[in-house]
Amino acid sequence: MAKEITNRTENYSQWYLDIVKKADLADNSAVRGCMVIKPNGYAIWENMRDQLDRMFKETGHVNAYFPLFIPKSFLSKEAKHVEGFAKECAVVTHHRLMNDPNGEGVIVDPDSKLQEELIVRPTSETIIWDAYRSWIQSYRDLPLLINQWANVVRWEMRVRMFLRTAEFLWQEGHTAHATRQEAMEETLRILDIYTKFAEEYMAVPVIKGIKTENERFAGADETFCIEALMQDGKALQAGTSHFLGQNFAKAFDVKFVNDKNEEEFVWATSWGVSTRLVGGLIMAHSDDSGLVLPPKLAPTQVVIVPIPKPSPEIGEVADKIMKALRDKGITVKYDKDDQKRPGFKFADHEMKGIPVRLGIGMRDLEKGQVEVARRDTKEKNFAPLDGVADYVAQLLDDIQQNLFNRALQFRKENTTRVDSFDDFRAIVETPKEGMPEAWGGGFISAHWDGTTETELKIKELTKATIRCIPLDAEEEEGQCILTGKPSKRRVLFAKAY
Amino acid sequence: MAKEITNRTENYSQWYLDIVKKADLADNSAVRGCMVIKPNGYAIWENMRDQLDRMFKETGHVNAYFPLFIPKSFLSKEAKHVEGFAKECAVVTHHRLMNDPNGEGVIVDPDSKLQEELIVRPTSETIIWDAYRSWIQSYRDLPLLINQWANVVRWEMRVRMFLRTAEFLWQEGHTAHATRQEAMEETLRILDIYTKFAEEYMAVPVIKGIKTENERFAGADETFCIEALMQDGKALQAGTSHFLGQNFAKAFDVKFVNDKNEEEFVWATSWGVSTRLVGGLIMAHSDDSGLVLPPKLAPTQVVIVPIPKPSPEIGEVADKIMKALRDKGITVKYDKDDQKRPGFKFADHEMKGIPVRLGIGMRDLEKGQVEVARRDTKEKNFAPLDGVADYVAQLLDDIQQNLFNRALQFRKENTTRVDSFDDFRAIVETPKEGMPEAWGGGFISAHWDGTTETELKIKELTKATIRCIPLDAEEEEGQCILTGKPSKRRVLFAKAY
Repeated sequence: MAKEITNRTENYSQWYLDIVKKADLADNSAVRGCMVIKPNGYAIWENMRDQLDRMFKETGHVNAYFPLFIPKSFLSKEAKHVEGFAKECAVVTHHRLMNDPNGEGVIVDPDSKLQEELIVRPTSETIIWDAYRSWIQSYRDLPLLINQWANVVRWEMRVRMFLRTAEFLWQEGHTAHATRQEAMEETLRILDIYTKFAEEYMAVPVIKGIKTENERFAGADETFCIEALMQDGKALQAGTSHFLGQNFAKAFDVKFVNDKNEEEFVWATSWGVSTRLVGGLIMAHSDDSGLVLPPKLAPTQVVIVPIPKPSPEIGEVADKIMKALRDKGITVKYDKDDQKRPGFKFADHEMKGIPVRLGIGMRDLEKGQVEVARRDTKEKNFAPLDGVADYVAQLLDDIQQNLFNRALQFRKENTTRVDSFDDFRAIVETPKEGMPEAWGGGFISAHWDGTTETELKIKELTKATIRCIPLDAEEEEGQCILTGKPSKRRVLFAKAY
Repeated sequence: MAKEITNRTENYSQWYLDIVKKADLADNSAVRGCMVIKPNGYAIWENMRDQLDRMFKETGHVNAYFPLFIPKSFLSKEAKHVEGFAKECAVVTHHRLMNDPNGEGVIVDPDSKLQEELIVRPTSETIIWDAYRSWIQSYRDLPLLINQWANVVRWEMRVRMFLRTAEFLWQEGHTAHATRQEAMEETLRILDIYTKFAEEYMAVPVIKGIKTENERFAGADETFCIEALMQDGKALQAGTSHFLGQNFAKAFDVKFVNDKNEEEFVWATSWGVSTRLVGGLIMAHSDDSGLVLPPKLAPTQVVIVPIPKPSPEIGEVADKIMKALRDKGITVKYDKDDQKRPGFKFADHEMKGIPVRLGIGMRDLEKGQVEVARRDTKEKNFAPLDGVADYVAQLLDDIQQNLFNRALQFRKENTTRVDSFDDFRAIVETPKEGMPEAWGGGFISAHWDGTTETELKIKELTKATIRCIPLDAEEEEGQCILTGKPSKRRVLFAKAY
C-alpha cells in the first residue's frame, strides 16, 4: 500500500494529494472549488476545534452565531475592507426555483430577484459590527469576547485540498473593547493562544510576527500572524490576529459611553484559523509511508493488531490493554478484521498516521510482552505486558515531543541569513540535495527598506514574499538586499502557500 | 425586570419573544429571515449538540463535512425531492463583485455569471449521495454511518426566532446500508436516540410516530418523527428520521456488490434535528418570570449571590462551594457585581433560567447555612453549608425530573380522545380556562380514513394537522371523524408550529 504514494522528493504536491486520498481525509466534490471532508479528516479538525475552543473559553470567550449572508452594501462600508473582500465571492441574487415551463428540470424564478444581492460571507466583520451597534451602549457592555465556528466562502478555482478551497471551515473571533490598549492586548493574547496550539498540539514550531502593510488584513491597522515552515521549504501562514483599531466601529457607527461619560468609538480585534491547519499538519510531519499525526490531535492514538489473526486469547489480552489505555484517556482501536494479513494492516495504519501500533502474537504473549511500533521513527520495540499502558502513555509523549523537535531542527537547518540579493536569489532558486524537487528555499532572514514597492519587486523577481517582521527581531543596522537603503531589522522571507 | 415580559396567558407569542430578548438568546439581523444566535442562546445549542454528538458516536456514527452548495440540476434528480425542496431557496448566480463604474459601492460583475446556478443547501441528500457513488463499491464498504453538523437555508420571510428562520443550524445524518432491514433498523435507532435526548435531556416528553404520506419528507419512503406539546396547546415536531428506501441510490446511481456477488442499489436513511429545539425548550418549560432550563442543558446550573453584596468572607465561602460543585461536574458562577442589589440579581437570574440560586449572607453563615432557591417551582429553602454540594446535586436531579413530570402531566391533561367532528372542532376552537389566549387545543386522538383528501379537508376546516400515527397506537375499529369511513387506529392531531 505504501508503494502507492509518490515520494516527497519526487513530487511534493502529488505526495500531499496521495496522502489526502489514501488516508481518506478528503475528496473532490461535484461543486468546483469545494471539497468533501471525509470522516478521517474531519476527526482531526474536530480535535483541533475542541482544543482551541477550550483555550478560547479559558480566556473568557464565548461562542455565538451570525448570518451566513451579508448584504452587498455592507462590504462597501469599510473602505479598505471592500478592496480586499468584495472580489471573488458567491453572490445570491434570487430566492426561488420553479419548474421549467419548456421542459424538464428547474429554473431560477425570474420574479424572485432580491432587491439587494446577498454575499455568502468571506469573513464576518461587517455583519457582526452591524449587530454590535445595538449591543454596545456603555463601557459596562465591554469587552465583548465573541467567537464563531462557521463556514466561509472565497471563490477559488485552483483548489488544493485543505490549503485552498472555495468553502472552508474556520473560527473567527470578533472582540470589542473600550480602549486601544485592551484591544491590542487581546490581539496578542490570541496570537499566544495560536502559538501554543501550533507548537504544543500540532507539534509545529511557528514564528510570531507582524505583517507588512501589503499583507495586512483588509480593514486592519495591524495584522499579527504565526508562520510555519513545511517540508518543501515553503511557508504556511497558520493563523492571523488583527488589531482593527476603530475602523469597523466607525464604518458601522458603534459608539459607547466611557466611564467619564464621553462618547467614543469602540476598539476591535478579529482573528481566525481554518481547516487549512489540517493541510499544514499533514505537510509538516508526514513521510513517504503516509500520514504522521501528533498524538495530541490523532483521532486514534493506538491500534492493536492481532498476529497473525484474531483469536479468543489475543482478544482477551487486547481487551485488557484497551481498558487500561482508555482509563488513561488514550484512544485505541482493535483491528479484528480476519480477512487481511498483518503486513497489509501495518501499512494501512501507517498510511493513516496512527501514532502507536501494538502487535500481539502468541509467541510474544508467552514471553509476557507485546510488540510496540512508533509511527514517527518506525522503530519497533518490545514492552512487558505488565504496565504496558504506562509505557504507551510515555511513548505518546515522546512522539509528540520528537515531532516538534524534528520540525524545529528542520526549520533551523532551513533558515538562512542573507545580506545580498544574489545570495537571496540563489537560495530561493537552487534545488537542495535530498529535498523535494520544487524546493522553496526555506525561511530567509534579510534586510528590507520598509517599502511596499521593494516588497512587490522582490516578489516579482523571486516569488518570495515577506511572511512577517518577527516579534523578536533584534534591532540591527543593515541595508535592504534589493535597494541598499537603510534597514533597522531583518524580516522573514519565504515562498508561501 | 420580570414585569417587563408579557404574561403567557395574555399573548403567548409575545411572551416567547420577550423571553428570547430578555434572556439574551437571539437577536434580529440585518438580513431578512436570518437571526443572530447570541452567546446565551448558542450555549444551549452547544450543550444540545455535544450531547447528541456523544449519542451518535456511541452508536458508531462519525462526522464529515459536505459542500454548502448544490448544483441546481442535482435537486431534479430525485422526482419527489425536487417538489419538496426546489422552491424557496437561496440561489447563487454569480461569483464576483466589481466597483460600480457609475459611482459608489460595488455591483455584481455581469461577466461572472455561473454556467450552472448553485443552491445553498436546504438539506444535503443530493450532494452526499453524489459523493457516496464513488465511496461505495462492495458490501464491505457498508454501512456508512455519517453525520454532519451544518447550516442550511430554506427561504422564509415570516420569521419566528429559533422556530422558523431562513438559515438554521442542524445535524443531518445520512447513512447507507446493504439491506432494507438494516436501514429500517437505523431509522428507528435514531428515533430512539432523539426520544431519549428529548425526554432525558430536554425534559420534554414526546410521542413517537409515523408521518402520513402528505407530511412525509420529500424523497422518503417513510418518515418517523417525535412530537412534543407546547404550553399553548400546539405541537412541535422535534425531530425526524427518514427511511429513504433506494430512492437516492437510484437517483445518483449508487450500487454495491453484495455478498452473493450481485449488484444492488444501496439503502438509505437521513435524520435531523435543528436549532428549532432551542425554541421548543423555551416554550416547553418557561414561565412568566422568564426562561426555565432543565439542568442537563443549562449552560450555568448554579449561581451564587452574595447578600447584600460581595465581601471577603462571603467570597471565601463562595470559592469553597464553587470548588465542591465543580468537582461534581456542576457549572457555577459567582455574581460578584457590587453595583446591583440582590433583588435585581434574583430577577435577572430567573429571567435567564439558571436552575439553582444560592444566596449567601452573613446571618445565614453564622447559622451555618445558605439559602437555596430552585427556578422551576421558585421554592426557597435553607441547606447546611456542610454537604451543600451534595444537596445541590440532588436538587438539580429533582428539578430535571420535576420539569419532565410537569410537562408529562400537562400533556396528559391536554390530550383528548374524540369520536365526532363536532367534538374535534370544539376542542380545537374553544379557548381553555387559564391557558394562553390562542389556545391550540392540545393533542387530539381521533380516527381518520387514511386518505390525504380527508387530512387536507380537516386541516382546511380547523388548521389542525395529523402530527403522526403513534407507533404505539392500538388496533381499534372506528370511523373517520370527517367521513365516517372505517379506520383501524387513532392518529394524533394538533395545530402545529
